Amino acid sequence: MSATVSPLAPKTFASLPALRGVRMATASAGIKYKNRTDVLMMVFDAPASVAGVFTKSKCPSAPVDFCRTNLPHGTARAVVVNSGNANAFTGMKGRAATELTAKSASAAVGCSENEIFLASTGVIGEPLDATKFAGVLDAMQADATGDFWFEAAKAIMTTDTYPKVATRTAEIGGVKVTINGIAKGAGMIAPDMATMLSFVVTDADIASPVLQSLLSAGVEPSFNSMTVDSDTSTSDTLMLFATGAASGDGQARITSEQDPQLVSFRAALNDLLKDLAIQVARDGEGATKMLEITVTGAESDAAAKTIALSIANSPLVKTAAAGEDANWGRIVMAVGKAGEMADRDKLAIWFGDVRVAVNGERDAGYSEDAATAVMKKQDIPVKVDLGLGSGKATVWTCDLTKEYVAINGDYRS
Amino acid sequence: MSATVSPLAPKTFASLPALRGVRMATASAGIKYKNRTDVLMMVFDAPASVAGVFTKSKCPSAPVDFCRTNLPHGTARAVVVNSGNANAFTGMKGRAATELTAKSASAAVGCSENEIFLASTGVIGEPLDATKFAGVLDAMQADATGDFWFEAAKAIMTTDTYPKVATRTAEIGGVKVTINGIAKGAGMIAPDMATMLSFVVTDADIASPVLQSLLSAGVEPSFNSMTVDSDTSTSDTLMLFATGAASGDGQARITSEQDPQLVSFRAALNDLLKDLAIQVARDGEGATKMLEITVTGAESDAAAKTIALSIANSPLVKTAAAGEDANWGRIVMAVGKAGEMADRDKLAIWFGDVRVAVNGERDAGYSEDAATAVMKKQDIPVKVDLGLGSGKATVWTCDLTKEYVAINGDYRS
Repeated sequence: MSATVSPLAPKTFASLPALRGVRMATASAGIKYKNRTDVLMMVFDAPASVAGVFTKSKCPSAPVDFCRTNLPHGTARAVVVNSGNANAFTGMKGRAATELTAKSASAAVGCSENEIFLASTGVIGEPLDATKFAGVLDAMQADATGDFWFEAAKAIMTTDTYPKVATRTAEIGGVKVTINGIAKGAGMIAPDMATMLSFVVTDADIASPVLQSLLSAGVEPSFNSMTVDSDTSTSDTLMLFATGAASGDGQARITSEQDPQLVSFRAALNDLLKDLAIQVARDGEGATKMLEITVTGAESDAAAKTIALSIANSPLVKTAAAGEDANWGRIVMAVGKAGEMADRDKLAIWFGDVRVAVNGERDAGYSEDAATAVMKKQDIPVKVDLGLGSGKATVWTCDLTKEYVAINGDYRS
Repeated sequence: MSATVSPLAPKTFASLPALRGVRMATASAGIKYKNRTDVLMMVFDAPASVAGVFTKSKCPSAPVDFCRTNLPHGTARAVVVNSGNANAFTGMKGRAATELTAKSASAAVGCSENEIFLASTGVIGEPLDATKFAGVLDAMQADATGDFWFEAAKAIMTTDTYPKVATRTAEIGGVKVTINGIAKGAGMIAPDMATMLSFVVTDADIASPVLQSLLSAGVEPSFNSMTVDSDTSTSDTLMLFATGAASGDGQARITSEQDPQLVSFRAALNDLLKDLAIQVARDGEGATKMLEITVTGAESDAAAKTIALSIANSPLVKTAAAGEDANWGRIVMAVGKAGEMADRDKLAIWFGDVRVAVNGERDAGYSEDAATAVMKKQDIPVKVDLGLGSGKATVWTCDLTKEYVAINGDYRS
């Protein structure tokens, strides 16, 4: 946790209501430091439906492997999350640590080990001493409470400068349901799965396969459209749980992703995921500016996204943003290097509402002052139109500052 | 040009001999600033053979387009290079500027416009006033001299902190030939064509198609294996000229790329290209460390190179290097995100001779002190063995420092 809160932090935090069927507790297990909250336990009173998406890294952490194995089982009773150690690239020791943690958690909750889900973030390559969990999980399960979302979000922070929380309501068949979500992440943030960690819970009654379908679709325009530094984590984990408590209000269980009753829920979920994803981008390590990059007129949506990410990940674009420099030539460079079809002489570029280039050259009405005025804002919309087709995409990123270098030049010490 | 020379600069510069058949001159044309050397002219007394490789950007500069058009003609009489303005993304004005420059140069030299080659670097998107060349090219052609390589290298610098020069000798059929090369570049440096600008000249007598074949092959393990910031320029240009003057010593013209007499020349050329490429990486903006990243045991050489570049372009790897932090977990991360086949549990990683990880976990004999000692050096060899196949590749990069952010956060002012 940084001493300085990101200038892009929300002015106020959403107040997350307790959500029927889920309780949480935090503890200090001494994973890396003494007397620092480093474990979060989320307990579902009854088996909850579960869905997850994970890092595409070829070197995933042991907890990611563990969750992938348990996911097909389809129910969750508890989630154990720790900071300070990613339990990644820890070989056989890593697998042993996840097994021991699951064993401790299942004993505490009174459930099967395949109803436990795990997530760890922190240093890669350090063996995780899972015996430390054994001493705290029983008490956590006993003390867990529903009105604990903000504390939970704080507990999973590492280099984050503020907790990420969001809540939405929706209705399914006339019954009101709630969705709460928390996320962490500030660096090593890139598609695909730019989340580091995020846990979303609803009291709706929705079967696991439907949840998975909703989550897999919802992640694409949210967490998978956000990048801080182009570095994909070995630990990225986004999970969605449904406690089903709304069935007590008469909500009929949803078992098909085609169910028209999902319209409101799907919209609310997607909105919440986007909210959390943008909160992560706004807490990008060292960030002082937020860039929303929209590419239109591409050959396809996929091409538009590739180009948008080429812009969003360009160190030269990001340092220009940090310097409040309306250096649109670097946008041209990033479009050109993306590898997707582009016609230089059809390209148009805007900073905010200021069109700086059109038809492959500087706009005749270009005003450096007007463009610079946009760059001086905290939130900078960048738009590129390729003039080729109807493909479009929007991605979010932050600027690249000296502070990013400082944070990451001495992270482990 | 920066006030501070890169700590990675060569201690001494190669002394480049005059090379028969080529003369150079520099001038101050006031392209961007007054009284600053900003134009280099290279004149070939007789038509020289010519080869070139250029940026793969979809938004190339007007001079790149111009060179591509002239290259099939196969002979060169002059090269005009300017700094201060890239003549990129300048639309019709850009094409008009290259045509006017070529006209002025061909008039000065007395040759066809399709024997002229052009290169420009500097700000993107500003129209280039080519009438400024008209006033200086006649005098430059008259004053051009052979013993001018170091001055030429200095003239094309922009954010470079030192000139890049290299020279080699070889023999073709028992006749000694010489190869001289200069390069510029410090930022916006990435494969493919990580060179920004480089001009290489030999007095050997080699036909253009053979030169092209030699250059296209030679660029792959040199300039195309080097990255500073993953940002590919719109202007990257590497050209190779052969004046043929060695024919006066009895060297028989080489007309086939299969000619066994090319062995010595090919080796010398490849060595020179690698030398220049590494000099560019060592002058990466803000660089304090040089990383040589070797990947072995990959499924193929191409896979090895993709993984090596994923490591070399990772902001987290590069900031760790800046912080002298032996953070090998970030190497694991970069291997994992590369998208190529990797088996976490077969991976081994070295910093210098210190093996830090093996079989998917920290080396049992790991010594933080030993690894840190490697990181404290200026030159840091990183080796990754994937344990899958026999594919291998080596790439070069520099660290990412606050100075990079400072240089690029306010480049245009």
